[in-house]
Amino acid sequence: MKACGLIVEYNPFHNGHVYHIQEAKKTSNADCMIAVMSGSFLQRGEPAIIDKFYRTKAAIRAGIDIMLELPYPFAVQSSDLFAKGSVQTLSEIGVSDICFGSESGNISHFITSYHAFKEKESVFKETLKKFLSQGESFPEASKIAYKEIGLSTSNMDLTQPNNILGFSYVKAILDNHLSIEPLTIKRSKSGYHDQSITSSIASATSIRKQLLNSSELSSSTTDTLPEETISQLKQYKKESSIWHSWKDYFPLVHYRVMTMTTEELAAIQGVDEGLEYRIKKTAKKATSFNGWIESIKTKRYTWTRLQRIFVHILTNTRKRDMEFIHELSSVPYVRLLGMTKKGQAFLNVRKKEMDVPIISKLSLNVHPMLSLEEKATNAYYSILPNKDKLKFYNQELHTPIMI
Amino acid sequence: MKACGLIVEYNPFHNGHVYHIQEAKKTSNADCMIAVMSGSFLQRGEPAIIDKFYRTKAAIRAGIDIMLELPYPFAVQSSDLFAKGSVQTLSEIGVSDICFGSESGNISHFITSYHAFKEKESVFKETLKKFLSQGESFPEASKIAYKEIGLSTSNMDLTQPNNILGFSYVKAILDNHLSIEPLTIKRSKSGYHDQSITSSIASATSIRKQLLNSSELSSSTTDTLPEETISQLKQYKKESSIWHSWKDYFPLVHYRVMTMTTEELAAIQGVDEGLEYRIKKTAKKATSFNGWIESIKTKRYTWTRLQRIFVHILTNTRKRDMEFIHELSSVPYVRLLGMTKKGQAFLNVRKKEMDVPIISKLSLNVHPMLSLEEKATNAYYSILPNKDKLKFYNQELHTPIMI
Repeated sequence: MKACGLIVEYNPFHNGHVYHIQEAKKTSNADCMIAVMSGSFLQRGEPAIIDKFYRTKAAIRAGIDIMLELPYPFAVQSSDLFAKGSVQTLSEIGVSDICFGSESGNISHFITSYHAFKEKESVFKETLKKFLSQGESFPEASKIAYKEIGLSTSNMDLTQPNNILGFSYVKAILDNHLSIEPLTIKRSKSGYHDQSITSSIASATSIRKQLLNSSELSSSTTDTLPEETISQLKQYKKESSIWHSWKDYFPLVHYRVMTMTTEELAAIQGVDEGLEYRIKKTAKKATSFNGWIESIKTKRYTWTRLQRIFVHILTNTRKRDMEFIHELSSVPYVRLLGMTKKGQAFLNVRKKEMDVPIISKLSLNVHPMLSLEEKATNAYYSILPNKDKLKFYNQELHTPIMI
Repeated sequence: MKACGLIVEYNPFHNGHVYHIQEAKKTSNADCMIAVMSGSFLQRGEPAIIDKFYRTKAAIRAGIDIMLELPYPFAVQSSDLFAKGSVQTLSEIGVSDICFGSESGNISHFITSYHAFKEKESVFKETLKKFLSQGESFPEASKIAYKEIGLSTSNMDLTQPNNILGFSYVKAILDNHLSIEPLTIKRSKSGYHDQSITSSIASATSIRKQLLNSSELSSSTTDTLPEETISQLKQYKKESSIWHSWKDYFPLVHYRVMTMTTEELAAIQGVDEGLEYRIKKTAKKATSFNGWIESIKTKRYTWTRLQRIFVHILTNTRKRDMEFIHELSSVPYVRLLGMTKKGQAFLNVRKKEMDVPIISKLSLNVHPMLSLEEKATNAYYSILPNKDKLKFYNQELHTPIMI
């Protein structure tokens, strides 16, 4: 059975994702669609709007056969580590292809660019370093460095967000010599072939904005979501009373910072260069999450980078907790969140050949990385009503979702 | 000008306290009444129902001339350290007497008992150690040890709560050879001389219970409170929306424990003997503060001791933050919360002779102990609405209350 991998957040799972699954299936000619997804907190440093289990159900009902969780130390990270963890997870589970969306839509341009990049990597790194030292943010300095080595042409424009992520996936595949074929489909509203689909596709950002601002499902939002997602969003809110957003976590993360020493804050993942003083100082006057980030933001510290740091503060993830990931040759386990019958059939064959364990229940004795996942889950559910926290947490201890 | 010292919590300031001030004034024949009070968190390991500034106003309007804050590291402590910090604070400010309430009501019995205790201190300590090692709680083992050396007679019954505290004060005065005269007044409802006062005196515990359960001021409660307190309670609730109780802090302290490692928990003040595992384990099923404490409580770990530990968790106070207090020969500063004109006149003379600084604003560069106070205050106000936290915190930076 041939499997194709997707790297996603599904926050929430929307019509664009349905389209992506269908196109990836056609392009790869795979039988089994396998997705790896961030869990409680996402790459942009945000809580997932509904939990990973509810997002898994929506995605499986709409075409995913196996849903895997990208471990926290790879999920809440810059794009290179995010890509590394995702690609390695899909590699361990045994996909033949990985299909990602990009502005480019042409995989040969990614491959050519990879080789061009490798040739000029030292110039890239030098330029990156130079502009970082001038106070540019990492994304901005990267863009300049890609331009410097000629990777911002119309063929491969590495200043565009999905091209950047896609290029990270291609790098992770080729750098690690994985026997996975990278594939890409064009991802931009105007790029979709079928106009009737186009009208029902919106960006994830605008969907989230609508959901979190109105706290209800408006018709303009539901038009962009498959029925499975609408049902999971409604169900989650009914059971938990909320959709998760940073504003709900503000009192917790503010309380934590207000009762931490600067030394403790400096030990948190991502808090460097004296940022601990800036966070402590601004905390005193902060009355909302957005206002707080706004008051810390600089050219170097982008909104996304700061949000990731705030996730690490919220989850109490320290630098020393994360050091081990640089020692790993691959991911130490594969976490299974849910599957279809077809997915199960694929796994039954595949698991005999795998080098790392497949786990479903969060059992801490498999690997220390799971204790970071446990803390992240605990932090994620901390804003739920007291009586409901345990019920939601217990999903971590169940067998995988079977649909 | 002669000054008499009182050691209190004023949580809230009630008719019993008014009576205590009046009797102490008569007994000591002092011009100036000086109280030292726990700040945000109290000796029993509870948040103060309204903050120290509002309590100060009520107490000053009802007879206190100078209000001092007992620093956090002494306030949230067992009775011996609580007594030591209080007595030393009053000694630094220059009181001639300290007057405490007791079931005994007879100071000569305290003095005699102190000398008897000193003679048999080794037997006391041995007995204490023996019963502690058998799993008894500290208060229970102390009671047995006091009995063993004959200090549970009708003259001096050191199994009664106010006698125990009073005895700690007498010990702190005499052990440190302070030139302070200890005084006591009989403290028990039936012991008050004036029946018309008696009927309006209730225990602080029952007053708090009524306040926190009904969330409103019932007539049976207001009968036991001076008008100044009623006004401060109302004002505080109007401005902050709450009266502080453990149930409001449960989501914060639960979140913290759920995102701490057992090693981090073991580093918190008071967490010994593997208690960290018990706290982590019970946290998973905890849905309320009281239920959580109930599930941790053992013969050795009393409710009060556990509450104190939970204050230290909430405020992130580690063992190494507290170590320095055992090195101190006296308190490193005296914190002034409020005063009357008479109090100010007393201080104007006294401050020239003092060995330690008087501070009013929480300025962190006077002594590291103030950073513990700052964290405690931050934790205390963490449950307020986001927009109000700063306003309340800013009281810490004002000049003292003058009434």
